[in-house]
Amino acid sequence: MREDLRNTNQLRPITMIPNFVKHPEGSVLIQVGETKVICNASIEDRVPPFMRGQGKGWITAEYSMLPRATQERNIRESSKGKVSGRTMEIQRLIGRALRSVVDLNVIGERTVWVDCDVIQADGGTRTASITGAFVAVVLAFGKMLEQKKMNKMPVTDFLAATSVGVLADGTEILDLNYEEDSKAAVDMNIVMTGAEEFVEIQGTGEEATFSFTQLQMMLNLANEGLKQIIDIQKETLGDLAVRIGETIKDGDK
Amino acid sequence: MREDLRNTNQLRPITMIPNFVKHPEGSVLIQVGETKVICNASIEDRVPPFMRGQGKGWITAEYSMLPRATQERNIRESSKGKVSGRTMEIQRLIGRALRSVVDLNVIGERTVWVDCDVIQADGGTRTASITGAFVAVVLAFGKMLEQKKMNKMPVTDFLAATSVGVLADGTEILDLNYEEDSKAAVDMNIVMTGAEEFVEIQGTGEEATFSFTQLQMMLNLANEGLKQIIDIQKETLGDLAVRIGETIKDGDK
Amino acid sequence: MREDLRNTNQLRPITMIPNFVKHPEGSVLIQVGETKVICNASIEDRVPPFMRGQGKGWITAEYSMLPRATQERNIRESSKGKVSGRTMEIQRLIGRALRSVVDLNVIGERTVWVDCDVIQADGGTRTASITGAFVAVVLAFGKMLEQKKMNKMPVTDFLAATSVGVLADGTEILDLNYEEDSKAAVDMNIVMTGAEEFVEIQGTGEEATFSFTQLQMMLNLANEGLKQIIDIQKETLGDLAVRIGETIKDGDK
Amino acid sequence: MREDLRNTNQLRPITMIPNFVKHPEGSVLIQVGETKVICNASIEDRVPPFMRGQGKGWITAEYSMLPRATQERNIRESSKGKVSGRTMEIQRLIGRALRSVVDLNVIGERTVWVDCDVIQADGGTRTASITGAFVAVVLAFGKMLEQKKMNKMPVTDFLAATSVGVLADGTEILDLNYEEDSKAAVDMNIVMTGAEEFVEIQGTGEEATFSFTQLQMMLNLANEGLKQIIDIQKETLGDLAVRIGETIKDGDK
Amino acid sequence: MREDLRNTNQLRPITMIPNFVKHPEGSVLIQVGETKVICNASIEDRVPPFMRGQGKGWITAEYSMLPRATQERNIRESSKGKVSGRTMEIQRLIGRALRSVVDLNVIGERTVWVDCDVIQADGGTRTASITGAFVAVVLAFGKMLEQKKMNKMPVTDFLAATSVGVLADGTEILDLNYEEDSKAAVDMNIVMTGAEEFVEIQGTGEEATFSFTQLQMMLNLANEGLKQIIDIQKETLGDLAVRIGETIKDGDK
Amino acid sequence: MREDLRNTNQLRPITMIPNFVKHPEGSVLIQVGETKVICNASIEDRVPPFMRGQGKGWITAEYSMLPRATQERNIRESSKGKVSGRTMEIQRLIGRALRSVVDLNVIGERTVWVDCDVIQADGGTRTASITGAFVAVVLAFGKMLEQKKMNKMPVTDFLAATSVGVLADGTEILDLNYEEDSKAAVDMNIVMTGAEEFVEIQGTGEEATFSFTQLQMMLNLANEGLKQIIDIQKETLGDLAVRIGETIKDGDK
Repeated sequence: MREDLRNTNQLRPITMIPNFVKHPEGSVLIQVGETKVICNASIEDRVPPFMRGQGKGWITAEYSMLPRATQERNIRESSKGKVSGRTMEIQRLIGRALRSVVDLNVIGERTVWVDCDVIQADGGTRTASITGAFVAVVLAFGKMLEQKKMNKMPVTDFLAATSVGVLADGTEILDLNYEEDSKAAVDMNIVMTGAEEFVEIQGTGEEATFSFTQLQMMLNLANEGLKQIIDIQKETLGDLAVRIGETIKDGDK
Repeated sequence: MREDLRNTNQLRPITMIPNFVKHPEGSVLIQVGETKVICNASIEDRVPPFMRGQGKGWITAEYSMLPRATQERNIRESSKGKVSGRTMEIQRLIGRALRSVVDLNVIGERTVWVDCDVIQADGGTRTASITGAFVAVVLAFGKMLEQKKMNKMPVTDFLAATSVGVLADGTEILDLNYEEDSKAAVDMNIVMTGAEEFVEIQGTGEEATFSFTQLQMMLNLANEGLKQIIDIQKETLGDLAVRIGETIKDGDK
Repeated sequence: MREDLRNTNQLRPITMIPNFVKHPEGSVLIQVGETKVICNASIEDRVPPFMRGQGKGWITAEYSMLPRATQERNIRESSKGKVSGRTMEIQRLIGRALRSVVDLNVIGERTVWVDCDVIQADGGTRTASITGAFVAVVLAFGKMLEQKKMNKMPVTDFLAATSVGVLADGTEILDLNYEEDSKAAVDMNIVMTGAEEFVEIQGTGEEATFSFTQLQMMLNLANEGLKQIIDIQKETLGDLAVRIGETIKDGDK
Repeated sequence: MREDLRNTNQLRPITMIPNFVKHPEGSVLIQVGETKVICNASIEDRVPPFMRGQGKGWITAEYSMLPRATQERNIRESSKGKVSGRTMEIQRLIGRALRSVVDLNVIGERTVWVDCDVIQADGGTRTASITGAFVAVVLAFGKMLEQKKMNKMPVTDFLAATSVGVLADGTEILDLNYEEDSKAAVDMNIVMTGAEEFVEIQGTGEEATFSFTQLQMMLNLANEGLKQIIDIQKETLGDLAVRIGETIKDGDK
Repeated sequence: MREDLRNTNQLRPITMIPNFVKHPEGSVLIQVGETKVICNASIEDRVPPFMRGQGKGWITAEYSMLPRATQERNIRESSKGKVSGRTMEIQRLIGRALRSVVDLNVIGERTVWVDCDVIQADGGTRTASITGAFVAVVLAFGKMLEQKKMNKMPVTDFLAATSVGVLADGTEILDLNYEEDSKAAVDMNIVMTGAEEFVEIQGTGEEATFSFTQLQMMLNLANEGLKQIIDIQKETLGDLAVRIGETIKDGDK
Repeated sequence: MREDLRNTNQLRPITMIPNFVKHPEGSVLIQVGETKVICNASIEDRVPPFMRGQGKGWITAEYSMLPRATQERNIRESSKGKVSGRTMEIQRLIGRALRSVVDLNVIGERTVWVDCDVIQADGGTRTASITGAFVAVVLAFGKMLEQKKMNKMPVTDFLAATSVGVLADGTEILDLNYEEDSKAAVDMNIVMTGAEEFVEIQGTGEEATFSFTQLQMMLNLANEGLKQIIDIQKETLGDLAVRIGETIKDGDK
């Protein structure tokens, strides 16, 4: 059993508060254990220069932490005048993951800006960001459908993310908090769809290595966890979840 | 009467949720109407180079907005690689205001970092930041007292801020929301103490000017409003407000 | 009496040398005591993107100090790669003040760039900049009128600035030099028009506070000083001052 | 069969020219097909601030491309004034991978700087960089051993990287060139040790997803390829490869 | 005689490998003693904004060193976020020199980007860059001629560069290596054409001065050396050298 | 005869106003025709890190132009966030030139900061900067001698700079103004000592070339002009010029 009394295959409690901020087209506050991220999706009626004239849309993400989201205060990236490598890596990951389940042709020449701002961090901020960002994006598309600016839900499947890892003693665990993450020998982030297909696998031995068997164990843990997370997304999205289900069925035909 | 049905001398509803984020020494979520700001105060056990060896502390503030705190999404200052003039002006104002009611000798060689992060903006973000920052700083000092790291409350008086203005038709109003602020001929921010002394007055004719009589009218409105805001601060701070009261009495002797 | 033998309500000697630099449309070297600022106004035949197509002009200001304008040499902002918060605050103040007495519709789609470069600093550089910038801008408009590029003087009133303050012993004084400024408990900058209307009031307690009575005393001192400064502007501008007078009368009808 | 006539499980020709540049402690020019990377390892006799006083060393990597390594010329990151997200991601990956097979305690308080400069790009620059960087680092350690600055080889195992992918038609292939990479539905980079343990797995569906079965197929391809690459490393390193073998045996005891 | 056994008027061995990198229109690896520079010329079908609509082309150069081209590793300029004064000076010199022997009207509205990347440095990197850049540019124009994108060779004469200097003992020497360069009292870079006309002379007393007689001696040494270097260029360019010869004859008419 | 009626070998009128700004240790306003530069020398009691512990001093220069020193307004380098290549080149030139006539051992561990700020530009700003900077530096050393902070004048000779050029028609001319400079085929800056030794020669064919005979003609013109300029420096410096004369004689022994 773990420090916070969870089983190795147990997620932390997850809640999502939709429409948390009023101005964005889609907004959600996601809490995964003590990690809290505001995910806002904004729709802009144009695409970046490299996409113009193709009739397709684009999705891009930005990620940031409040300076005191962490135990020690961090210097703001705006004060440093540059964005760290870690931030860029996470931003690219979130954008790529979302694009894999959105039909960019349906969006038209629009950009979806996804802002993930961590207000409290306790491990798993990038996976919580992806899970929350998916919901924010669907909410934004919902508003577009309501306003007749789009004629079908552009989302082709559900999408969620979580982390798995291997502790120093060799135990595989699901959904690492900060304490566990900083001690883990192996750390892996998995992004998966509702159809249980992988979108992204990023596994790293932290001054350590891992075997194929350990990989399999971790993927199984992730799979079980992600199915539960997607259920929470469905509950949060209500009718919009149903519309995604219809899109998926259409796609299957 | 105003668009949102307030009287000219009426504040918007104000609420403060203390301990909103768990890591900072002091944290509050302040809401003034639809404006919401997370104010976090962090204590660092050293001072900036220009202050070293004087046995005194320092207070500095940073201010930022989430990209979608506003109606239109703004580009992050970290992406632009530089902080705007407006942001710097506000940061300097918050820091200066707080330092006017804190005895820096009592703090010892420590820095108080105050982070004001606007998550939703509807006018008055800088004054809400000052009002909330004061509470966050007192909470942080409260924790220091509890942990016996300080032996008396370094705060010498209460501190709050609000805005006043003159509409195009010449009416003076208190606590402008975004709509009013963008139409006002004159815009003034007032920072005041519990003793009704001014800490900062910043009045600007926006392609307009104002007379001494109008100035007096605005200062009266501000005075009435700020007394109400300080009452809400006292309520939020509970026992800590009492300790500030004691410090004030000591100072009077 | 003060260190430099002035009375509390006495300005430092002020001189203005028009046409100090030959290339700009308007140029003046203003000296206020030992403070010397080159104010240049340049007319550009287009407006910034956010103003295009409105048939209106724009006025913007930049402020800088030579590295050795001060007692200790300062690092150039170009070497640091960024402009300080103080500089930005001053630039915004100068631009805002000038726009309050210029009819931007008369200018047409042109930008007035005002450069205030301090070559020697002894307190009051921002107020000297505003006072000198006003003269430079009027000179530039004079040249435009002469060249028939404008058909009336766009300036709607005179504009000047000065500082007032409260010393540690409670004395209110006018036009602080560097020595006085660094010791003052309260420091206030006032921008006023020829009609004695306020354009900007910025009063700051430096780790101190001030009462309404002190505010009134300071505003009176400023008022008396600013009338004298505007007289010097009129003398410097000669015929152009007369033209502004005519515009004001027209405006009154 | 593929455009360049390779089988799906066939690597491109690989050559490594050791001591390509004369100043660095370790240097190699690695060619993988038409991709050419200069990998230089430099030993500095101190560690970054966050590592000081622990008696341990550090390894960090930088990655860059000549502007015309690619078909179209790219703007230099030094001209843009900032490093792209892609570059940072790759730098972090290379450093992390190398640290997983180096005993940082053996190095002592030294930093190994690894510079991977791509002079010609045709896909797989990041995996070629890792494979070449490993050789450069071993060469640098070899020089340290020769100069008696270290008393044992700090490398605990061999390390190499390659890419695998899934084409649009569902075929899994090994070692993608630029053409293949830009068309692939799934792209995966694998870093593995001589003991066939994973160090890093980064698999991405490019606007696509992949199943567990496809993942297994790709990992098998990578495994076969990486064993061949490590054989080429051993040949290049000669005696130094033997010394690594000895370290591995020691570690096994 | 010198440390490396050369006579005072003797060049180091020079070799040039044309088409060293495959993507650029023109590419050469130049080696001058132990100094090695990759010179790539890229043709872009547009000119910078300040040149548009004139029917003329432009040539611009960028210069960089790999971090470990030198004895001690240098920090990358992309990491520092800015380009050094030395780099800019060299870039401007290379571009200016090339433009003096190219008829920009013949190029049409195209930009030639010349990238000089030093992979190993041992003195004279800027002069080697000019000598190599000339060859890369001619190769690029050769390709344009072949592809019928230009109808005549735009190069009006040969161009090469070398350094001369005065040692502490007063001896004038040709083609300084790093060791000599760091000890020299006077250091001079000469860029000359095939017609033995000067394009650029940059002579600097390094905390020293030099007389007119010394200047004459140095210019003679340079003249002799540059004729030999141009012979090597001709050999490398083969048929293209002949075409330049024809252009020169045409120009003479 | 030239547009401004000067002979080909005639300088523009030169004046120097010493002690132009009050704070710097040395200050001069130099005017060469319509070019005006404020040259300030500041003495700092420490040297940059790379010079520490050697008991020697350092001289460094910074150069800048007011935005409206020129016909068209230029964007400030502080607004652009970076210093241009041209500025860096000039800064390096001024510093290098001054160091060639100053005995850095006599200064002790001090840095001389020389700021050359062009307030009006009409050609030859870099040579006027050097000529004026020399005077400012001597004035600063004069103050150090007076205050007994140095025990002898560290200047080993006079130093001045001017430009020469070749017009399109082949005429060689001295001291080019902006009009001439922008039309010249060849442009050359010469820095010379009182002993008529060269410190720096920078000659550039602007899309043109020049012969050895033309070089000789230009050097003669420069030589005659520079002797006159040094006479004006001597007059400006008065007694301090005598002290330099004594230092030179001492050096000759």
